[in-house]
Amino acid sequence: VQVGPGDDCAVLTGPGGAGWIATTDMLMDGVDFLLDEVGPRRAGRKAMAANLSDIAAMAGRPVAAVVSVALPRHASASFAEELFFGLKDCADEFQTAIVGGDTNVWDGRLALSVTVMGEPGPAGAILRSGARPGDRLLVTGPLGGSILGKHLDFTPRVREGLLLAEMTSLHALIDISDGLAADANHIGEESGCGIVLRAATIPIAPSAYQAGGKTPLERALSDGEDFELLFAVTPEEARRLLDLQPLPEVTVYEVGECVAGTGLYLEDGGKRRPLEPVGFVHQTDA
Amino acid sequence: VQVGPGDDCAVLTGPGGAGWIATTDMLMDGVDFLLDEVGPRRAGRKAMAANLSDIAAMAGRPVAAVVSVALPRHASASFAEELFFGLKDCADEFQTAIVGGDTNVWDGRLALSVTVMGEPGPAGAILRSGARPGDRLLVTGPLGGSILGKHLDFTPRVREGLLLAEMTSLHALIDISDGLAADANHIGEESGCGIVLRAATIPIAPSAYQAGGKTPLERALSDGEDFELLFAVTPEEARRLLDLQPLPEVTVYEVGECVAGTGLYLEDGGKRRPLEPVGFVHQTDA
Repeated sequence: VQVGPGDDCAVLTGPGGAGWIATTDMLMDGVDFLLDEVGPRRAGRKAMAANLSDIAAMAGRPVAAVVSVALPRHASASFAEELFFGLKDCADEFQTAIVGGDTNVWDGRLALSVTVMGEPGPAGAILRSGARPGDRLLVTGPLGGSILGKHLDFTPRVREGLLLAEMTSLHALIDISDGLAADANHIGEESGCGIVLRAATIPIAPSAYQAGGKTPLERALSDGEDFELLFAVTPEEARRLLDLQPLPEVTVYEVGECVAGTGLYLEDGGKRRPLEPVGFVHQTDA
Repeated sequence: VQVGPGDDCAVLTGPGGAGWIATTDMLMDGVDFLLDEVGPRRAGRKAMAANLSDIAAMAGRPVAAVVSVALPRHASASFAEELFFGLKDCADEFQTAIVGGDTNVWDGRLALSVTVMGEPGPAGAILRSGARPGDRLLVTGPLGGSILGKHLDFTPRVREGLLLAEMTSLHALIDISDGLAADANHIGEESGCGIVLRAATIPIAPSAYQAGGKTPLERALSDGEDFELLFAVTPEEARRLLDLQPLPEVTVYEVGECVAGTGLYLEDGGKRRPLEPVGFVHQTDA
């Protein structure tokens, strides 16, 4: 068995060449959600969905999940049940079986860790590192303001990752968890190219206008946890996907392109300026 | 891909019949260790070792691990490093690659969750459910008093599980995490037979005498986290293993046998009495 590091996931290759991918994410009350506000069901759902999104980010097919949880001591039986239903409903939606777990009780706040194992999709595990100068960068939905609700209720783009891997040649792929600027920069750095994002074409979500505090464009660039896919394809393929719009549940938008050199830039009103790849910072993260 | 529940682990079967096993365990400061006393390195080691023990409990071969952690906000860089070294040293010892992870910071105490993926051993995944009346129950080492240190520094019996699976027909297998009485009872209940433990042959660890509070035998029966393997084999095989002592690092002892019927019993001084399958209760568990 060979083990190679993936990006969002680890890639495991068995003796027969059959690959497995695995990813893990821990979510904590006060960091990834406020339990008193969202309740256990949405907390559980987010934990499963965030992990499924990491599988989608490699265009993989999720198969099975294990869950470990530290429950607050005062949690009721129905609390634990709701948490599990949140996890399971989301797993079921993506044909993922919860096959094991570890339930604990402690004096601390809720922490839950999910590990999802899956298979590479039709084109193998897609990494962040294959983008080339000239490639266009596309996303699977509008961005920004996820804090108003989408960060809890997003749909992991598992189906879209698999469909895209089937119908086009994905040069690079990532899910937008840190924010468009930061995640586009990941693709640029790991592919050895520069990135130009274009203000005029970046799709901005309605919630980016409602959230306030920053301009809607700033939110689309820097807000995290939209969990849309960001991917690099040739200009011809980009054209085809934008025209065809072949994904049943989402619209594909162009956000920029890969260029020779290095760095991250924003083109706005005809001017190109360097852009800080400022990542999403969790509510209470250090 | 078929997914079946294991006991300590989940069993995943791919299209080519190649199986994978997976297990997860979360350990928390104040429940599974006292961080101030043991430090991050031993905490990390215990988290990895406990998961490897679950793989050993199915006679599996660990391959890869992912780790997610919630660090206390005040933790230093060297704290995180020590934690990782503790995890990695133990993983290395059993040829297990740490292939992914998720590091978080929060206002709570340390929580760390490990998922280990592995392959079934030479005889497939051994469950708890195959013991038959007449089978003898054997363990890989003396029991009791692990709270004095072994619960942190135990060696997961990965090598022993694989060797045993190769050299004998294991009818049932488990690692002693809840305590001999509770874990023997798991084998009995899941195999549909009764269990008789014999006081005269149960190996009692020196620390069971030092720990106080209960008799050494009570400690050997009820203390948890010895992480020795408990397994059922035919009387002939038991005889052979006890005579040969074929495991290089440990001594094999007989602790009792499986009988027709149901229930858990202790034979002591010629008398057989029912025994409560009292499980190990973590320091602060509900």
